[in-house]
Amino acid sequence: MIKTGIVGATGYTGSELVRLLYNHPEVSIEVITSESRTGDRFSDVHPHFSGVVMLELEPAEAMLKKEVDLIFLALPHGVSMRYAEKYRNAGFRVIDLSGDFRLSSPEIYQQWYGQAHTYSEGFEGAVYGLPELHREKIRKAGLVANPGCYPTSAILGLAPLLQAGLIAGGQVIVDSKSGVTGAGVKAKPGTHYSNVSDNFKAYGLKGHRHTIEIEEQLSGLAQEPVQIQFTPHLLPVDRGILSTIYTQPKEKVTEKEVRALYKSFYKTHPFVRMRDEPPALKEVRGSNFCDLFVTYDERTKRIITIAVIDNLVKGAAGQAMQNMNLMMGLEETAGFPMVPLNP
Amino acid sequence: MIKTGIVGATGYTGSELVRLLYNHPEVSIEVITSESRTGDRFSDVHPHFSGVVMLELEPAEAMLKKEVDLIFLALPHGVSMRYAEKYRNAGFRVIDLSGDFRLSSPEIYQQWYGQAHTYSEGFEGAVYGLPELHREKIRKAGLVANPGCYPTSAILGLAPLLQAGLIAGGQVIVDSKSGVTGAGVKAKPGTHYSNVSDNFKAYGLKGHRHTIEIEEQLSGLAQEPVQIQFTPHLLPVDRGILSTIYTQPKEKVTEKEVRALYKSFYKTHPFVRMRDEPPALKEVRGSNFCDLFVTYDERTKRIITIAVIDNLVKGAAGQAMQNMNLMMGLEETAGFPMVPLNP
Amino acid sequence: MIKTGIVGATGYTGSELVRLLYNHPEVSIEVITSESRTGDRFSDVHPHFSGVVMLELEPAEAMLKKEVDLIFLALPHGVSMRYAEKYRNAGFRVIDLSGDFRLSSPEIYQQWYGQAHTYSEGFEGAVYGLPELHREKIRKAGLVANPGCYPTSAILGLAPLLQAGLIAGGQVIVDSKSGVTGAGVKAKPGTHYSNVSDNFKAYGLKGHRHTIEIEEQLSGLAQEPVQIQFTPHLLPVDRGILSTIYTQPKEKVTEKEVRALYKSFYKTHPFVRMRDEPPALKEVRGSNFCDLFVTYDERTKRIITIAVIDNLVKGAAGQAMQNMNLMMGLEETAGFPMVPLNP
Amino acid sequence: MIKTGIVGATGYTGSELVRLLYNHPEVSIEVITSESRTGDRFSDVHPHFSGVVMLELEPAEAMLKKEVDLIFLALPHGVSMRYAEKYRNAGFRVIDLSGDFRLSSPEIYQQWYGQAHTYSEGFEGAVYGLPELHREKIRKAGLVANPGCYPTSAILGLAPLLQAGLIAGGQVIVDSKSGVTGAGVKAKPGTHYSNVSDNFKAYGLKGHRHTIEIEEQLSGLAQEPVQIQFTPHLLPVDRGILSTIYTQPKEKVTEKEVRALYKSFYKTHPFVRMRDEPPALKEVRGSNFCDLFVTYDERTKRIITIAVIDNLVKGAAGQAMQNMNLMMGLEETAGFPMVPLNP
Repeated sequence: MIKTGIVGATGYTGSELVRLLYNHPEVSIEVITSESRTGDRFSDVHPHFSGVVMLELEPAEAMLKKEVDLIFLALPHGVSMRYAEKYRNAGFRVIDLSGDFRLSSPEIYQQWYGQAHTYSEGFEGAVYGLPELHREKIRKAGLVANPGCYPTSAILGLAPLLQAGLIAGGQVIVDSKSGVTGAGVKAKPGTHYSNVSDNFKAYGLKGHRHTIEIEEQLSGLAQEPVQIQFTPHLLPVDRGILSTIYTQPKEKVTEKEVRALYKSFYKTHPFVRMRDEPPALKEVRGSNFCDLFVTYDERTKRIITIAVIDNLVKGAAGQAMQNMNLMMGLEETAGFPMVPLNP
Repeated sequence: MIKTGIVGATGYTGSELVRLLYNHPEVSIEVITSESRTGDRFSDVHPHFSGVVMLELEPAEAMLKKEVDLIFLALPHGVSMRYAEKYRNAGFRVIDLSGDFRLSSPEIYQQWYGQAHTYSEGFEGAVYGLPELHREKIRKAGLVANPGCYPTSAILGLAPLLQAGLIAGGQVIVDSKSGVTGAGVKAKPGTHYSNVSDNFKAYGLKGHRHTIEIEEQLSGLAQEPVQIQFTPHLLPVDRGILSTIYTQPKEKVTEKEVRALYKSFYKTHPFVRMRDEPPALKEVRGSNFCDLFVTYDERTKRIITIAVIDNLVKGAAGQAMQNMNLMMGLEETAGFPMVPLNP
Repeated sequence: MIKTGIVGATGYTGSELVRLLYNHPEVSIEVITSESRTGDRFSDVHPHFSGVVMLELEPAEAMLKKEVDLIFLALPHGVSMRYAEKYRNAGFRVIDLSGDFRLSSPEIYQQWYGQAHTYSEGFEGAVYGLPELHREKIRKAGLVANPGCYPTSAILGLAPLLQAGLIAGGQVIVDSKSGVTGAGVKAKPGTHYSNVSDNFKAYGLKGHRHTIEIEEQLSGLAQEPVQIQFTPHLLPVDRGILSTIYTQPKEKVTEKEVRALYKSFYKTHPFVRMRDEPPALKEVRGSNFCDLFVTYDERTKRIITIAVIDNLVKGAAGQAMQNMNLMMGLEETAGFPMVPLNP
Repeated sequence: MIKTGIVGATGYTGSELVRLLYNHPEVSIEVITSESRTGDRFSDVHPHFSGVVMLELEPAEAMLKKEVDLIFLALPHGVSMRYAEKYRNAGFRVIDLSGDFRLSSPEIYQQWYGQAHTYSEGFEGAVYGLPELHREKIRKAGLVANPGCYPTSAILGLAPLLQAGLIAGGQVIVDSKSGVTGAGVKAKPGTHYSNVSDNFKAYGLKGHRHTIEIEEQLSGLAQEPVQIQFTPHLLPVDRGILSTIYTQPKEKVTEKEVRALYKSFYKTHPFVRMRDEPPALKEVRGSNFCDLFVTYDERTKRIITIAVIDNLVKGAAGQAMQNMNLMMGLEETAGFPMVPLNP
């Protein structure tokens, strides 16, 4: 039985981690922490766990005295790095769900997150936790930087094309649409029901932090600089990200070739499903799947790729559990509910 | 490993049954049938099962040659009785998710469903499959009539009061609100997005078929005739039923006594959760829980009970699997995902 | 041209008032006030007015120097009374959209709103602004207390029965369901998209402030004390209230008689529509209609009434404009968009 | 008073036309036709018009005997051409809301709509009814082809750039997202609530009919062939289209220049609002506005334009009424409700 601890309980990723880990037959949740709600039950914060998860919330400090095999950090960026440092120094293996260790250096971090990084050493051993790209490194990592939700969809949607060198580096447009849980649990005008329901809008044009995360990963794959145009939008749905991706191949291709390229790339990856029709958000809801559809438009000479994930699962907590399975030597799919909740 | 078959694959209850049974570690799905889609894959009909459930749909006739321990009928009422007869005569144990065997006699059936019943013999051995009321009978039943979605919420909300003889028989009002999946998978004006979204209405006043189902079960408990006023409404949500129930106690009670009565009644029932605050639909979504809240209004001398279920789970497929667990000698909660999907 | 001023611009009722008054051909909006956003444009707060309403927000103090025929107070209760006093003392006619003058006395107010009333004199001349009950008094009123949203639906649904003396006073159940705008513009956990969408729950059982407002008005009509059981619920919709109302006639009636009673009662009231089928929220959305449906259940001897309004229009801003039309000697329907926005 | 007739009453565009024309003080609706519902009241088909619009539906044939100044065709493409021919031959001026006369020739029509055109003569006098491009021609037109919903957003979003010759013809990507009413009133799996709610997907990739409509209009403006990549998506909302448009300027520009270009282009067009922040769907809901936002990304050298409309108003019925105002010599904004319904 693998013993885990979760730091940060009030948000959606913390709650979703508990949902997934609770159902994992080879895992126990030993401790959940919250500074603001210490002493309350976890189910006081998230009543849908009533009668199921009985744990009381403890201060993060308490973790240091626990025997756990792995710690998940479900904290805001900027805060997470402090706990990562503390737990790494105490010898724990850590999966960080924030953005604090996803980029290549403290300098790049400061440039895009607008604040200094206080745990530069963390970057050395940190592995970008996208199993479809870095599976072997993840197995041995001490600190895994769990990818952002938008980047997960964009990178998985583009990886086969860029690794094959098929795409001109500057010709990538990622038009993404996300559900509201991506904006967090905090009540603010942007998450007020009446500002979201029956509504839709773009936001964060030109400077969203996930841009650099996508670019760095894809540049690594392409072995040349990749620049993307990334535009996020807010959907009136709880969960899910759909990214519509436009690229131009450097040379003549056929639809058949492009589809074969994707199939081959993801052949051994159980959570990527190649689909024959454009996938819909609910077809992955609650699951760890990334569904991909790719087509080639003869008329315009463009490749269009559509990537769909549940932002709280494959885009956060599920991917973290997938990383945990790798780190702990389990089957990559161990403990996952494989059927999406639809409708 | 318990071998199961599912008759009727295109609707929501069939699909939900496959979701739940697939995740059950002690169960295999041997066959899924569909007359209209024979030869297609189950995942062609429900693409969210792509890559997970590979079964091809077979004709219902094929079931007779299979070695299965239990057959689920996920068919419309009126159709279901024909298959129930066939499979029972062939010696199979059957859980019928339609309304065909929920009432006390073919005559009552004809009166409320407006059609003759063609398998009267079925009523003899049929057990009403609400485990919280009939657990022992279900264990041995050959034919289980899985309860309706509204009745599940109403009966569980009222059972403690009526069994205790606390309520005047004619003073029960059940104001119920249901999600759209209760209206079925078929596209019709009433399920068109633009007629449901941002909308709300009552329907089926005075004569809904579930009225008699609730009355019969409650009359049995109360050992006197119980009449209810039942008004269903259509919510702009996918899943979930919330019933607000108004009753008047015959004699003076206190809130404390009423709550104690409920707690005691459901003490040994793992899927009923007594809640301290009015529960919300999403707090049970995707799970087999029925969450109950009860309060006593000193000012008006009324008891108000609120019952919440996921209509596709505790109101249909989940309850069927709970019945299967009982019939097959498994733990009542075996194989269930216990954490609701929220948000 | 009637000159109006609006105090309180940031909420939904203020915004909705501007929408309606802007389209009214015989009305001008002279001033809109906001303490928190003084100096901003009204359209900075509500961008959908961009290019349409150019007014800058002024402090409430400025109103005293304006020549306006009527002032609307779109403020929270407790705050509104202070401005009502100020403007009444300065000789303005006022329509107050808060709860500050809806009840019969400062004492009752204190009991249900939990705070002392600082402008007791206001109660003397205040008229409860439900035109279907108090049309003549409204015409001459100096201070109109615009009804609450739930009470508007409940009172209009019950008035014909109680005036006719048909109903036993203690046998009224009002099960109401409201859209989220009723909870206000402020971001809080209860209005977070993910707590509302695909969700539903009851709240405020037993002690909601609108209970007494409904009871006082109905007792006046019935000329005997009327007690109601009122349960509000939160719908995942923006706008709209649907109240399902259960009553028991003292003596034998027929459906035909009951329907005739309603038709007669509302014969001269242009905003109440008697419907032959249960109405849906969207059938009144954006309009000032209250749609009513009434039926008699022979089996249970109960009358069921369904009342539907748009809570921001007939339940707030529209009713205020209807009151304004009466106070200013205009046609009751003057300036209203008569066709609901559906879908 | 301008007398109008509407052919086709059961769909959303017919219903929305009646909503807008009913509120227009200088217009009367003389006749509404429906073949399938002849003899029923219009409000039987659309109950939200109860008590407001009393007209009975007549057969289309009846129109020929009426004295009307203008006929609106709210019919499916392929059907509409037959009525257009009949009414034009009888001397009526006609606004056709279908796709039958939007393209440049019967041959192009056949190629993209997959059926022969039976009224080739119609193309001669037909004017593409986008007032921001063809205002003067519309004033005198006998047959106006009211634009498609997606094309309205895309063309208005791109027109300033292409007329200025700023954009390379082949470098235009239009990523569009539409509400469900765009798919029509008919119940089908794609409009079932549970397939749309909390969901999102792309459809019609590579071959959507609106592609050619956009290309033809933009090519006309640019005076060179323009090719676009057009991808529509289905939003879980009733109304609204948001198009995110990516272009690459041929030469160096600044954000300031681009914004000035748009402001200048739309200076005299009352229904286009240049916005300083990305607009949201609800900020135009129920109104005839097209809200535009444009920005230049220095990093990627791309222009991003966002266009938002209500697909039933500016994308259909509102644009038709705008065309009517021009054809009848009225103010372009006459009779329009100028404030969107939000929330």
